[in-house]
Amino acid sequence: MIVILKKGATESQIQAVKDLARDLGLHTENLSQGEDRIVLGIVGNTLSINENTFRTIEVVENVMRVMTPYKLASREMKKENSVVKVDGVKFGTENIVLIAGPCSVESKEQIIESAHAIKESGAQVLRGSIFKPRTSPYEFQGMGLEGLRLLDAAREQTGLPIETEVMDPRQVSQVEESVDMLRVGARNMQNYDLLRQVGKSEKPVILKRGLCATVKEFLLAAEYIMQEGNQNVILCERGIRTFSTDTRFTLDLNVVPLLKGLTHLPIIVDPSHGTGIRELITPMSRAAVACGADGLLIEVHPNPKAAKSDAQQQLTYDHFRQLVVDVEPIAGALGRSLGAKRQTHKSRQKH
Amino acid sequence: MIVILKKGATESQIQAVKDLARDLGLHTENLSQGEDRIVLGIVGNTLSINENTFRTIEVVENVMRVMTPYKLASREMKKENSVVKVDGVKFGTENIVLIAGPCSVESKEQIIESAHAIKESGAQVLRGSIFKPRTSPYEFQGMGLEGLRLLDAAREQTGLPIETEVMDPRQVSQVEESVDMLRVGARNMQNYDLLRQVGKSEKPVILKRGLCATVKEFLLAAEYIMQEGNQNVILCERGIRTFSTDTRFTLDLNVVPLLKGLTHLPIIVDPSHGTGIRELITPMSRAAVACGADGLLIEVHPNPKAAKSDAQQQLTYDHFRQLVVDVEPIAGALGRSLGAKRQTHKSRQKH
Amino acid sequence: MIVILKKGATESQIQAVKDLARDLGLHTENLSQGEDRIVLGIVGNTLSINENTFRTIEVVENVMRVMTPYKLASREMKKENSVVKVDGVKFGTENIVLIAGPCSVESKEQIIESAHAIKESGAQVLRGSIFKPRTSPYEFQGMGLEGLRLLDAAREQTGLPIETEVMDPRQVSQVEESVDMLRVGARNMQNYDLLRQVGKSEKPVILKRGLCATVKEFLLAAEYIMQEGNQNVILCERGIRTFSTDTRFTLDLNVVPLLKGLTHLPIIVDPSHGTGIRELITPMSRAAVACGADGLLIEVHPNPKAAKSDAQQQLTYDHFRQLVVDVEPIAGALGRSLGAKRQTHKSRQKH
Amino acid sequence: MIVILKKGATESQIQAVKDLARDLGLHTENLSQGEDRIVLGIVGNTLSINENTFRTIEVVENVMRVMTPYKLASREMKKENSVVKVDGVKFGTENIVLIAGPCSVESKEQIIESAHAIKESGAQVLRGSIFKPRTSPYEFQGMGLEGLRLLDAAREQTGLPIETEVMDPRQVSQVEESVDMLRVGARNMQNYDLLRQVGKSEKPVILKRGLCATVKEFLLAAEYIMQEGNQNVILCERGIRTFSTDTRFTLDLNVVPLLKGLTHLPIIVDPSHGTGIRELITPMSRAAVACGADGLLIEVHPNPKAAKSDAQQQLTYDHFRQLVVDVEPIAGALGRSLGAKRQTHKSRQKH
Repeated sequence: MIVILKKGATESQIQAVKDLARDLGLHTENLSQGEDRIVLGIVGNTLSINENTFRTIEVVENVMRVMTPYKLASREMKKENSVVKVDGVKFGTENIVLIAGPCSVESKEQIIESAHAIKESGAQVLRGSIFKPRTSPYEFQGMGLEGLRLLDAAREQTGLPIETEVMDPRQVSQVEESVDMLRVGARNMQNYDLLRQVGKSEKPVILKRGLCATVKEFLLAAEYIMQEGNQNVILCERGIRTFSTDTRFTLDLNVVPLLKGLTHLPIIVDPSHGTGIRELITPMSRAAVACGADGLLIEVHPNPKAAKSDAQQQLTYDHFRQLVVDVEPIAGALGRSLGAKRQTHKSRQKH
Repeated sequence: MIVILKKGATESQIQAVKDLARDLGLHTENLSQGEDRIVLGIVGNTLSINENTFRTIEVVENVMRVMTPYKLASREMKKENSVVKVDGVKFGTENIVLIAGPCSVESKEQIIESAHAIKESGAQVLRGSIFKPRTSPYEFQGMGLEGLRLLDAAREQTGLPIETEVMDPRQVSQVEESVDMLRVGARNMQNYDLLRQVGKSEKPVILKRGLCATVKEFLLAAEYIMQEGNQNVILCERGIRTFSTDTRFTLDLNVVPLLKGLTHLPIIVDPSHGTGIRELITPMSRAAVACGADGLLIEVHPNPKAAKSDAQQQLTYDHFRQLVVDVEPIAGALGRSLGAKRQTHKSRQKH
Repeated sequence: MIVILKKGATESQIQAVKDLARDLGLHTENLSQGEDRIVLGIVGNTLSINENTFRTIEVVENVMRVMTPYKLASREMKKENSVVKVDGVKFGTENIVLIAGPCSVESKEQIIESAHAIKESGAQVLRGSIFKPRTSPYEFQGMGLEGLRLLDAAREQTGLPIETEVMDPRQVSQVEESVDMLRVGARNMQNYDLLRQVGKSEKPVILKRGLCATVKEFLLAAEYIMQEGNQNVILCERGIRTFSTDTRFTLDLNVVPLLKGLTHLPIIVDPSHGTGIRELITPMSRAAVACGADGLLIEVHPNPKAAKSDAQQQLTYDHFRQLVVDVEPIAGALGRSLGAKRQTHKSRQKH
Repeated sequence: MIVILKKGATESQIQAVKDLARDLGLHTENLSQGEDRIVLGIVGNTLSINENTFRTIEVVENVMRVMTPYKLASREMKKENSVVKVDGVKFGTENIVLIAGPCSVESKEQIIESAHAIKESGAQVLRGSIFKPRTSPYEFQGMGLEGLRLLDAAREQTGLPIETEVMDPRQVSQVEESVDMLRVGARNMQNYDLLRQVGKSEKPVILKRGLCATVKEFLLAAEYIMQEGNQNVILCERGIRTFSTDTRFTLDLNVVPLLKGLTHLPIIVDPSHGTGIRELITPMSRAAVACGADGLLIEVHPNPKAAKSDAQQQLTYDHFRQLVVDVEPIAGALGRSLGAKRQTHKSRQKH
């Protein structure tokens, strides 16, 4: 760390900073002692030291961290892209993975029919929440653990791997037995006990960016999971909260290429939550792919207006099929492919 | 709810909205059918209905909720202020409650000495975290459940009630047995399983506002707790995340008088986290009291620069004593009192 | 407008709202008078009425505007896309227009060389600021009106139309005589005297979105220009200010498809300012085109590190050439073209 | 400035940074050349150098400015508080100045009556806009220069100094002849030509913080004015734009004590625009005074619901009188006074 002291710092004030460094197991270099400012370098294992600690000394004007505070997730640690495998599906390759399905699992018929429909359009993973973090306690909270059986039935019939959200560390062991991927939602990105729990799982984890998380906080949340042993983390940009209420959230695609530079982990984008407006989902899916996303997470429902959650942002089957058709050429323009081979109408009738 | 349809909506499109309302157990009134826009009223128990559901129908241009989405927390439900009692200490009366103590419990000596010091200055409740939600997995995570014993010892010696943060629903039962108040941190404001768990507790709960939570979301988080039976919720403003990084967070005092109009629950303010700058804590404490806060939550540490967390924003004993001296006249100007009667230096020596 | 009154509004309170409407030249419809809430419709020419006026009456709980507050800029007013012509270059067609050039005009050599270089790569308009809105009064403020002569020379030699920023209404008449397009910067989006002045010009105007402007404010700024007679407005998304400082601003591509639905005006994107990070400019240009932008505004400088402003976000000639090569396939995938035909190396040597 | 290079920077890359410094008229110190990172110090007159210039060199990882980028406005330049005099009224002393009056000047009767009323309640300066920066071109734009005559008449009758907003550099000379103070609105905080023009005036200037301005940008805007010779700048916090729409803006009182540390200029607060909610104006005025504001700027109108602008946030005479009564004890608690001595009802009848 670089510590800058205020003009006119006395010898004993400088010594106080050095003493603090020593107490933290670090040592100090005198970098510069100009007439205007004094600059110290703090050297040693600073990973566990919060730079603000040095701000407690009044004479300190500014502190700048030199090393990244995350390690396992960093590109410095691992130069090549990580590939996360979920059954046969790989995240982080030329293939841009399509995850789709209803916001919530609502019934056996709904989830199975959805699974068939999205598979036909090229989706490779089926999503479906059984626990829903709803702003209001009076709204539908998800069908709970019994939904696992329905997801399983959908996998059985279509062969698609399944993913679902976990909200409570107590749910993790039961859920991970049934599904192929776990998802941690935006509101739980800093639920550290949950992160540690999914970090102990062997199942890949989609980690959604918190509503007001910086890139550093996002990568440190991934680091929590990886620290526990689970290296199969997929980052997901899903919109941040800004002054703009013209869209439900502000899908922040800038972090896609930014993260590509900072981390080796795959990055996917959720334009359904990110915009909250059905008409924007296809164009923003195109944009997500164009700037380098490794996958898309799209909400699709047999009858969106009857959906028990997020009704306004779920696509019909037809709309989703058209989305794939519209986004594919963008993937192609980048030399990538989107989703699995789509089934012809004929093959569909075989079901 | 009021639903506004786009210009030129056809009869069958209008019917689709009415059908949806009927499917949701509601009924529809024709409010206005002007040449420009058609306005429908949706009547019935709309508490469990998300207004966005109606936006799924393309012809719908706008939807406005008429009833507040929270009930138990609302001022409409209960006109008079709620008073929350923690041992002999009451939140929501003329007395402005002072909660103080170190960010984290670090040792027996530290917590007991802190407890004595803050009590002398007038604090009425001792704070001290044993679980710390740290951005980085490499930073100090709190001493865990063994900290409960130390908090208990501090209570024993000073008579002050104690509070601590819970982060994981699995901790709640053990923690609530030992402490007098539970605290839910900002990062867990929408950790709904945790909210439900503390809602089942009989101990009062300090609910901190999420970093980017709206007032509606904040009150709905309180509603989650109250729904489970625990009415003893104290709201705490602790700074929101905005474009401004001049302060660590932007302490949003505007919500204090705003919440006073919307809810009967007590509201306290945490200027330590809210500003993250030691020099701002006293002036913003004065401001918090001046606009109507029912309490202050202040971090105090025997030796801030050696603190294991939030070092830069913890006050020394002297600084805290001075804060109380500076804020008291503001409370007095409003006809309120701040904290408990302060002990004279003499009485202090008796310890 | 729809006005909702609080529960228990008395007859005289309702009358007060009706009286206010009458004073504003509007009339009132009783929409609903349920036991919970009373709903009134306010009808007439509400364009000049701010909905907050009704909030002055204490019994009013909520007001919702039904009509859009802008007219000339709205898609309702004009269904087909507007095409804005600048010399032979058209904004708002299948061709995605490339505007490029240095942040500031610095010397004759710099601007002429830049003009040649960007033209070779396919740019169709040359940008170059002669007035710079700098945060600090101590930084380079642009070379002023003498820069017009240099821009003119660059146009002379390359045939490219030229654009520059105006900051002060007093500059407009002299600048508009010399250039082919005017630009209003983000910091001046709500400088209404300037908007009115460029509204009196016959030259097309690029209107950049303010750093914290909503879509409504953005379109109303365009409306200020159009109201004065100048219909040739091109909207430009250039990044908003959010909590995220990982990028210089948060380029908000969501508004591209959103604006396409609301207005007939062309929309271009400035990824140079929008991200402020050189490595992000190409991927975000791809994304901008993928979600429907009608043009790109890119900063290119012969020697970025010697640039007098925005050094860190300007591209070298080579980098820009590569950007065009990388973005072109995205335009192609949408059935659009990007920029002008690029010159071969051979034709370049003819200069 | 401190420049940190990436791990593994080569000698020639290090030299490139040094060369750039030399080209900018600065010189370089080798601060540290550890195995992980290389740290350089850049020394000399860095006031006119944007730190981002160094980011153009790819090997640069981070840059930190050591000196503040403002000079005239800084507390380092001038230790004691500046006192700005407007007629007999002084900003920056123990007296907290009350500025009040209608949002817009609407008629002779309105402004004169308002002037009498606010004077009786203790106001010391009369506000009244004649140019209004309205979001919509269809809303009332102010009565223009003829309003100056009406303000003058109000001053004549009450003896109160008058202030009004300037929006266009062309208006400044005519307006400054008539009024005692100029005001630069939030939307023009970075309208640099306007700042320079009011910098040439001899009249004191109220500079309102931009809707998304950082403290650094705010002080640099003041620096623009001071650079031109006008040292009589009063800063005004008036609410920032954040994700929260529960209030019209988020009044950010944190900057009051923060600015007090960084600058010698007086700081006032505008809770009318800052909250946009009438019920919040008194509590937030109390809070503003409690954290150290040197003045309050309050909108008062004879009949708010008939006001041509900002109707919902203007106070009646009675409400304003009560505000003064409620805020005074807070000023007293700090050993300060609020506004001028209030007139008795008797003295009022003499008018």
